[in-house]
Amino acid sequence: MNPRVFKGARDFLPEQMLHRERITSVMRSVFKKYGFAPLETPAIEYLDTLTGKYGEDADRLIYRLDYKIGSKDAAALHYDLTVPFSRVMAMNPHLAIPFKRYQIQPVWRADRPQPHQGRFREFTQCDCDVMGTKSMVVDAELIAITYEVLKVLGFENFLIKINNRKILNGLTQYAGLTAEFTGEICRSIDKLDKAPWEEVEKELEEKNIPKTAIEKIKALLLGKNLSIENLRIAFANIPLALEGLDELTEIFKLLEIFEIDSKNYTFDLSLARGLDYYTGPIFETKLPLHPHIGSLTGGGRYDELIGLISGKEMPAAGISLGLDRIYTAMEQLNMLSDIKTSTKVLIANFSSETYVPSLQLLHQLRAIGIPTEFFPEQAKMKKQFSYADKLSIPYVLILGEEELKMGKISLKEMKSGDQILIEINDIEKEISK
Amino acid sequence: MNPRVFKGARDFLPEQMLHRERITSVMRSVFKKYGFAPLETPAIEYLDTLTGKYGEDADRLIYRLDYKIGSKDAAALHYDLTVPFSRVMAMNPHLAIPFKRYQIQPVWRADRPQPHQGRFREFTQCDCDVMGTKSMVVDAELIAITYEVLKVLGFENFLIKINNRKILNGLTQYAGLTAEFTGEICRSIDKLDKAPWEEVEKELEEKNIPKTAIEKIKALLLGKNLSIENLRIAFANIPLALEGLDELTEIFKLLEIFEIDSKNYTFDLSLARGLDYYTGPIFETKLPLHPHIGSLTGGGRYDELIGLISGKEMPAAGISLGLDRIYTAMEQLNMLSDIKTSTKVLIANFSSETYVPSLQLLHQLRAIGIPTEFFPEQAKMKKQFSYADKLSIPYVLILGEEELKMGKISLKEMKSGDQILIEINDIEKEISK
Repeated sequence: MNPRVFKGARDFLPEQMLHRERITSVMRSVFKKYGFAPLETPAIEYLDTLTGKYGEDADRLIYRLDYKIGSKDAAALHYDLTVPFSRVMAMNPHLAIPFKRYQIQPVWRADRPQPHQGRFREFTQCDCDVMGTKSMVVDAELIAITYEVLKVLGFENFLIKINNRKILNGLTQYAGLTAEFTGEICRSIDKLDKAPWEEVEKELEEKNIPKTAIEKIKALLLGKNLSIENLRIAFANIPLALEGLDELTEIFKLLEIFEIDSKNYTFDLSLARGLDYYTGPIFETKLPLHPHIGSLTGGGRYDELIGLISGKEMPAAGISLGLDRIYTAMEQLNMLSDIKTSTKVLIANFSSETYVPSLQLLHQLRAIGIPTEFFPEQAKMKKQFSYADKLSIPYVLILGEEELKMGKISLKEMKSGDQILIEINDIEKEISK
Repeated sequence: MNPRVFKGARDFLPEQMLHRERITSVMRSVFKKYGFAPLETPAIEYLDTLTGKYGEDADRLIYRLDYKIGSKDAAALHYDLTVPFSRVMAMNPHLAIPFKRYQIQPVWRADRPQPHQGRFREFTQCDCDVMGTKSMVVDAELIAITYEVLKVLGFENFLIKINNRKILNGLTQYAGLTAEFTGEICRSIDKLDKAPWEEVEKELEEKNIPKTAIEKIKALLLGKNLSIENLRIAFANIPLALEGLDELTEIFKLLEIFEIDSKNYTFDLSLARGLDYYTGPIFETKLPLHPHIGSLTGGGRYDELIGLISGKEMPAAGISLGLDRIYTAMEQLNMLSDIKTSTKVLIANFSSETYVPSLQLLHQLRAIGIPTEFFPEQAKMKKQFSYADKLSIPYVLILGEEELKMGKISLKEMKSGDQILIEINDIEKEISK
């Protein structure tokens, strides 16, 4: 047997998992503070639940099971968490509205994996969605959650970009084009954070956007006074755009009430987001000093998607926090300590004579909540120290015959190599120094 | 579209998930205290990693993907967590030995689902395994972990049954049979906790076990003095059985050191466990007062399985805690409170005049860590109270114009219906009563 990991998937060893568990635990506690409750759906869904929701390209990336292929019971792995959540809403009309749920689970995409760009076939999505209200309080809360999670994790220089699909629709109209061009224009100007205007302009020309329209878009996007107030003047005759601007004004007022540091968010007319289903405010978090890391989070309002799936109209907004992206960013920014275990103390297995008292000590330390291990083999001390060293366990306790006679124990601090003789009752005090 | 859940899988709504998250969080903290570190492997494995490890019957239950079928890259969903863990061990020879990992993930089995007996196609396993040592300290620690998790969750009358495959092999020899009969005999006597001896005897007869052998087994199993010491006399000439008895003696001594209440564990010669790969001590937890709830946990030592998978000899022992079984048991024993959210306070959306101060109050409560929601719509008070009621949110805060003038707020305790007028600064004190 030649053991290997499925291409595009990953094993997470303790040194990664300890951090991943901490990140999701921070998310869970912030989500709960904002009134979100956990939900889980199966990895396996009937194929017809998933197809026809994401667009043709995405449908091809759904992992199908070798199970009743071609029948109505054909099954597949979920592609995201939004569609399964919508199915739950459709099946559970008794749920209190607004329904605020978070969901942290893996999703699968039969994509060409690009590990260096953080693109995998199996990865974890951490979603927060609210269904049943058009209130901008929800959109502002989703931004506040993004902000708080990143702050608690230790991020400083992140930027939450905020825009509104209604404004982008308005931009198309403003340029004298019909609504159908909005998608093409969005996809091009979305590149402005990585490419110069000239490139975007060339792309628009290739898409046969008239020169006059391109000029109008350029004047707005590159204009020095690109503010919501100025856009209100430019879009004075485009009601949908004005509605979008009002929504953002409301959100920014709420972000002030929520004391979100204004250096961490901004209005960005060039933010468009990839998914087609957004209808209102959209947001995305970048690290401006590390543009190669990609977006840490993304989200927005999608008032029409649920109706499409459940047949019942249901406004909705949500965010997805990228566990893998956030982990990679923290790794690259040296925000992750080098840990391989939670164990604080290793009790050495010294001799048969001290076996029982060593195990009593083990029990004593665990009883007061200290993560402790006992080396199970009566191996050479060198081997036992090497184990502690490999796992970066900070302390090794030795209860040899000498120590036993004196009623004391030897405590070795692994980093400094210092070894001291202490009273058994002083252990807690010593290791919490 | 007719929305439905994949047969044999389940959605977990907040009222279940909040408890499930608490149960796994208790497990994680106990696992860590005993020196275990988290590990995760992908849901998708190459098919050849999985097949040929569990036996033919189980191989048929592996969910295959509709992906490169028939090629060496054919893929499938993992059937358990032990085989993927063994693959990780084979691929990462640098890991410090003994390696102690826990792993909490869903597994998939293309079985006929029997929800009433707790048999699903997708369910969560919570595994703790140690690789690289034959020390009985590990086996005793696994029993201690089982005990501690169940105690912390509030279980009282559970019984951890303990036996040893070496003793069961000895029993077969003692009855005058060759080792090949051990499996058949184990499967029959394993039923003694549900069926009377007569039934087991009949089954053994049908398996063509000689009458004299059955009599010897009966005398031992039903004998009044079935103790480890008495078995030592009966098995005096069977070295393997004596080894098994010595191992249990060692484990029981360790359980005393770990202060495990003796009413919660017992030696049980009739415990056999289903899986073929066990080689030493085996354990299983039952609720004797609720025999229909099946085993909450199970595990044992399997010193030969890893060699089979990785080609490298590696003693191992592990336990699997059944999240679904534990949840079902807690539900049936009324150990689960009726919760649908973590939200402690709902701030009513009273009027446009009090909108901003209400949101300031929302931010204030969240800042001191109180899970708080603001009703996003300016709906009728009745509707807002009904929302709090449906989710069992304990408090509703109302900041109306009157309250605003007085600089106070109305606090309604939903259970009693009592409404009092309080100072803003007294909220924390009031709701923590």
